[in-house]
Amino acid sequence: MQIIITGGGGFLGQRLAKALLNSTISFDELTLVDIVMPTNPGMDSRIHCKQLDLSEQAAAKTLITAQTSIIFHLAAIVSSHAEKDFDIGWKVNLDITRYLLEACRYTNPHIRFVFSSSLAVYGGELPAIVNDATAVTPRSSYGTQKAMGELLVNDYSRKGFVDGVVLRLPTICVRPGRPNLAASSFVSSIIREPIKGEAAICPVSPDLPLFLSSPETVIQNLIHAATLKTESLSWRTVNLPGITVTVKQMLDSLKRVTDEATIARVQFKADEGVNKIVSSWPGALDTKRALELGFRVDSSFDNFIHQHMAENKQSA
Amino acid sequence: MQIIITGGGGFLGQRLAKALLNSTISFDELTLVDIVMPTNPGMDSRIHCKQLDLSEQAAAKTLITAQTSIIFHLAAIVSSHAEKDFDIGWKVNLDITRYLLEACRYTNPHIRFVFSSSLAVYGGELPAIVNDATAVTPRSSYGTQKAMGELLVNDYSRKGFVDGVVLRLPTICVRPGRPNLAASSFVSSIIREPIKGEAAICPVSPDLPLFLSSPETVIQNLIHAATLKTESLSWRTVNLPGITVTVKQMLDSLKRVTDEATIARVQFKADEGVNKIVSSWPGALDTKRALELGFRVDSSFDNFIHQHMAENKQSA
Repeated sequence: MQIIITGGGGFLGQRLAKALLNSTISFDELTLVDIVMPTNPGMDSRIHCKQLDLSEQAAAKTLITAQTSIIFHLAAIVSSHAEKDFDIGWKVNLDITRYLLEACRYTNPHIRFVFSSSLAVYGGELPAIVNDATAVTPRSSYGTQKAMGELLVNDYSRKGFVDGVVLRLPTICVRPGRPNLAASSFVSSIIREPIKGEAAICPVSPDLPLFLSSPETVIQNLIHAATLKTESLSWRTVNLPGITVTVKQMLDSLKRVTDEATIARVQFKADEGVNKIVSSWPGALDTKRALELGFRVDSSFDNFIHQHMAENKQSA
Repeated sequence: MQIIITGGGGFLGQRLAKALLNSTISFDELTLVDIVMPTNPGMDSRIHCKQLDLSEQAAAKTLITAQTSIIFHLAAIVSSHAEKDFDIGWKVNLDITRYLLEACRYTNPHIRFVFSSSLAVYGGELPAIVNDATAVTPRSSYGTQKAMGELLVNDYSRKGFVDGVVLRLPTICVRPGRPNLAASSFVSSIIREPIKGEAAICPVSPDLPLFLSSPETVIQNLIHAATLKTESLSWRTVNLPGITVTVKQMLDSLKRVTDEATIARVQFKADEGVNKIVSSWPGALDTKRALELGFRVDSSFDNFIHQHMAENKQSA
């Protein structure tokens, strides 16, 4: 029994690996693969780290073996990056997904293929209630590539070539580390940097509603997807639950948990490119179906900040 | 000014070519391309017929030139065929669409790219009203490939690489010629064959509702898509109008237009594979948006039969 995490060097991949080591899922091998050699997330003989360029069509076939039971396919080019570099977005976000599914098809059709998609598949004029039955009309190449990957996983699953589950992740907050090329990068920055005593720039209006999940909840939901019974899932794509908060509510929360001086480090400076992408995403979703399927949701935004500060303390 | 029709050897391609020759659209060259050399649809020096395998990545670049102004991308592997031969479906229905869009991107971003999609993008548990805002959850590889092509055309259009319009075609009736590997092939067979004095088999229940367009209406709508102002189209995919009739209503109509002996040639014999695909498609759609955009709709099913009989007479 081998578990594979693509994007294993990333924040979610590393965190998922640690959570799997402490989970009830049994496995002999946990392989983290990434375009650069992933950090080994723990002292455990089951962990294997692999540097592999999955955009080379043959790579997926060397990665997936008869022992593979679960793949978490997290590797992706993030939203603003895929918007700036059109070609690499397609290569990584679409082609790699296809190569991995093909490799599963010819290896073991019972592989649980957990694909991380995103609420970025939505965009444009959205109905009052966005749910699993709402058409995806992405306003970014990233969202388009994720939407196409979702369709691929569903069709490969329908054909019995793989046992897929697609999770549309809310925006994750607070991501640790440095800002990245995700259009949503500021969502973590405006909490993380001020707490560190650094300035942060918010490129959108304080009134913009965001649909958020904490890292811990996303990780638990990814693990839940790995063991979910799929017989009753007529469609494999699930909008994960999240909470809706505006930027202003996030900063109010930050002030409550920290102090006035901390939130004073956040400056508003509009960025048209970021705003165009982020404001095209739904700020609220009806995720009743996900909750019925046993996926979790966070309680209040204060807890997002508490979770982040507790982790900072742990890693300090 | 060059117009290209992929799938130019097919029924729609041939018919579209003839209609373009008599339309108000001006062009110097009309290129019909197909995997086998297309029949020349008329004595007109503007027509060029080309045999080309567009699944060879380089082929699209030889086809599309600085003179290209409109492409009708009709080439496809039909539903049951794509279901039986998974690999060829992806190669033709997805990869070729991508190659053509890439070729446009590097040639002339003002090319009007008319992509023929299908109501087969819908499937599974559908809401009471299916419209442009309904999520696509295809239950066939054909529907999946078309849905992915739609997303591609939208993203290339959004980026300004091409000027795309995607039409979701209703099931077309009456197609001339012989039955093909489309799951919907019977929809034409049960009208066409009895009129010719031949037996036909209906693989679905008489109560199954179908969403239909006559060939003439589809052709007029394809031409309308070629000249439609796209500035106000926030999303490039449009469900074309059609009429809803059950198989029983089609046969009642056939009896009205012909006679009892004619409909007696239709036998019901269930086919699980065909039924699974066809009954996953919506039998009715709300296409108000398409009508507002100036697309046409047929009146009654009797006229479908009259249209077919008139054409039979013409070609006899």
